[in-house]
Amino acid sequence: MKWTKKHIISINDFSREEIDFVLRKSAIMEGKLFDSRTSSLMNGKILANLFFEPSTRTRMSFEAAMKRLGGVTIGFDHPGITSEVKGETIADTVRIVSGYADVIVIRHPVEGSARLASEYSDSPIINGGDGANQHPTQTLLDLYTIKKEFKDIDGLSICIVGDLKYGRTVHSLTSALENYNVNIRFVSPQELRAPRQIVKTLTEKGMQVKETTKLNVRDSDVVYITRIQKERFPDQQEYERVKDAYILNRKSLEGIQDNAIIMHPLPRVSEICTDVDSTRHARYFEQARNGIPVRMALLCLVCGIGFG
Amino acid sequence: MKWTKKHIISINDFSREEIDFVLRKSAIMEGKLFDSRTSSLMNGKILANLFFEPSTRTRMSFEAAMKRLGGVTIGFDHPGITSEVKGETIADTVRIVSGYADVIVIRHPVEGSARLASEYSDSPIINGGDGANQHPTQTLLDLYTIKKEFKDIDGLSICIVGDLKYGRTVHSLTSALENYNVNIRFVSPQELRAPRQIVKTLTEKGMQVKETTKLNVRDSDVVYITRIQKERFPDQQEYERVKDAYILNRKSLEGIQDNAIIMHPLPRVSEICTDVDSTRHARYFEQARNGIPVRMALLCLVCGIGFG
Amino acid sequence: MKWTKKHIISINDFSREEIDFVLRKSAIMEGKLFDSRTSSLMNGKILANLFFEPSTRTRMSFEAAMKRLGGVTIGFDHPGITSEVKGETIADTVRIVSGYADVIVIRHPVEGSARLASEYSDSPIINGGDGANQHPTQTLLDLYTIKKEFKDIDGLSICIVGDLKYGRTVHSLTSALENYNVNIRFVSPQELRAPRQIVKTLTEKGMQVKETTKLNVRDSDVVYITRIQKERFPDQQEYERVKDAYILNRKSLEGIQDNAIIMHPLPRVSEICTDVDSTRHARYFEQARNGIPVRMALLCLVCGIGFG
Repeated sequence: MKWTKKHIISINDFSREEIDFVLRKSAIMEGKLFDSRTSSLMNGKILANLFFEPSTRTRMSFEAAMKRLGGVTIGFDHPGITSEVKGETIADTVRIVSGYADVIVIRHPVEGSARLASEYSDSPIINGGDGANQHPTQTLLDLYTIKKEFKDIDGLSICIVGDLKYGRTVHSLTSALENYNVNIRFVSPQELRAPRQIVKTLTEKGMQVKETTKLNVRDSDVVYITRIQKERFPDQQEYERVKDAYILNRKSLEGIQDNAIIMHPLPRVSEICTDVDSTRHARYFEQARNGIPVRMALLCLVCGIGFG
Repeated sequence: MKWTKKHIISINDFSREEIDFVLRKSAIMEGKLFDSRTSSLMNGKILANLFFEPSTRTRMSFEAAMKRLGGVTIGFDHPGITSEVKGETIADTVRIVSGYADVIVIRHPVEGSARLASEYSDSPIINGGDGANQHPTQTLLDLYTIKKEFKDIDGLSICIVGDLKYGRTVHSLTSALENYNVNIRFVSPQELRAPRQIVKTLTEKGMQVKETTKLNVRDSDVVYITRIQKERFPDQQEYERVKDAYILNRKSLEGIQDNAIIMHPLPRVSEICTDVDSTRHARYFEQARNGIPVRMALLCLVCGIGFG
Repeated sequence: MKWTKKHIISINDFSREEIDFVLRKSAIMEGKLFDSRTSSLMNGKILANLFFEPSTRTRMSFEAAMKRLGGVTIGFDHPGITSEVKGETIADTVRIVSGYADVIVIRHPVEGSARLASEYSDSPIINGGDGANQHPTQTLLDLYTIKKEFKDIDGLSICIVGDLKYGRTVHSLTSALENYNVNIRFVSPQELRAPRQIVKTLTEKGMQVKETTKLNVRDSDVVYITRIQKERFPDQQEYERVKDAYILNRKSLEGIQDNAIIMHPLPRVSEICTDVDSTRHARYFEQARNGIPVRMALLCLVCGIGFG
């Protein structure tokens, strides 16, 4: 795969070899994070953050990654101050900005917008989330967190909990996991089950997939929990009935394997009680931090900057 | 002309010699754009962007220019988060910020605000647009684009299309063109004709000026088209009647000179169809990109940084 | 006192020795402000600005300070684009951001929020203002301005004017002045007198404290004036009656001591007429500028960067 100038739009564009390559490079980058040579790799390069939808965490993580590499950033962090309000198309915005910047991160509420942007950009585009569709760098940092813990992703039992129907993070992660040999347990309310296509594809690839409405953390190496949004339920009484079923606290961790880890893409609201934070299992804050070396590695790769 | 600490408020403050000097320096800067020495010219310098009115393109262009020079930026990108909401005057804001920054770009909806700011600032002020009044760096990059294409501005036929009555960009550009020897064809609806004073001044300086309501691109070297805003028409039926008369598409380019160029200050809405983008005539995206070397040159000049 | 990794939450956490130490270091920093070695002290370091409440001046001042030191900044400048709107706690936000940044400035409308944040952060937290509670760097730059003028704070007569009941700046400043031996004259409308506890503490420490409703600048070395906010008055007629009593203009400066200085935390609205700006007494713009070396010194101290 040619990385220089590559657009990072969807995790589905990556083969297993390519994913593994990014994870290896991310590990190298993490090792170099506080090496002063690292902090000049991107000297003279500009990253444009085009956030047509606010996202503090993703934006700050990309900014920190770029700046740790000695690069600089320009951009906007919310809609309504952009030329879009004057009727400009994404295509035009991207064509102009690619004249200013060496690499562009775009976040936009409309599915497919990042792909569209990539068709008009001279600079590599990184998808920072396009609606309910894709968020590939989140998936890469999720996989990086798992690999850092267990060395090998193959053979793991992974329990994915919460809103499996609409959750962008979940869809991207399961797409990536199709490349590995894992057992997956989907845990969700009946109303928010994973799309049939995802379950079908995983099964066809020979993976063990189990679907259940009951959260049980016992036999999993990884418990990946996500938010359930009230507004997803047509019937609010139904929401009230199920919402507490998917809350992790110290008590619900009884019987968890010693070396199991709990992940969450954050922000959490009430899905994980704070009494879990200090357990040996909590990895969600480290997971967020892992976004820095992963994004540093990707930025270097698409800008053609060698390291490690 | 002394450039160090000079305020850049209105294109009318520039003589032809001064404009030509900036254009020459911009060309030198463009040649050096990817020279690593260029990227440290502004090391240790701070640009403050005071955008009391949002303007993604202008702000990002100045930020990219400053950062390509190795400088840094501070500031705000929209009103409503500033001390202005607490009742602070522009004079006070500028006096304080000029204690933080080495150069200030100000954009404000009120005409004359940039001039006012310059009276209270120890650091050079660059006008990033003050209401319907002036936007001198836009004009300089317009002229730079023309000069880059034709080497010489004198002798060209320039067709200016759209809202000639209210368009800030058009007023600044025609003011600058008074310094050259050009033929100008103004094309607009009757309701949006160029101000009489502008036509009078150009004519008095000996230029050929023609006014028409019909768009014809045939005899022009430069077609400079701008947006017509619906809200400028008291009578919306009148708007509906004229709006399509000023749309450029492949068909309307029939008969255009081989080496003619089409310019637009952007963002465009529907004035230029996307089928024009891939023609040899389209220069509007390059025009936007030209803002970088022009603004880099200006920033260096007013900060007293020598180059080239 | 150990400065590295120290959180700067409240001026009450500082002993006199510690305050004096910061003021001395700030003076050293001011002397080095344009020394090129200074501008690389923070190379490779990241400051996160978490402004849950807008504050142009404080934010820009911290950004300028960090960038003058060669460091970089990330963050957000207003609420409503943060994960807080999705229900994230300050504790979680800070835990994540402290994984991205080496030092964090937080401004939040809720009292105690900065202290709370410091309990969850691996990186040092600097309070940029928490509601009506504390704004310690404002107080340090106030003291720095006084010390720069008079060499010694002990023995000065300080007149503090305006809203003494709700003014955060005033409360922090008087807390700090408890460490010195000064005469304080509090001038305010009856409705906005200083809290009894403040007056009591100052008196117990042996300081001369006088409270009055009448503004008289004659016997003071420092006149520190603040805004009176209309909305503080339950009775608007009462506001109309008193508001003009606390306006400084050239006329009201009659009889002021030759070397007396006038300070204001800014922004001012109408408390100081612009005819005062050009008098020898005006120090409020210089006071704002003094924020730069003071914040530069603090940033270096809490990041363990030695200088001078």
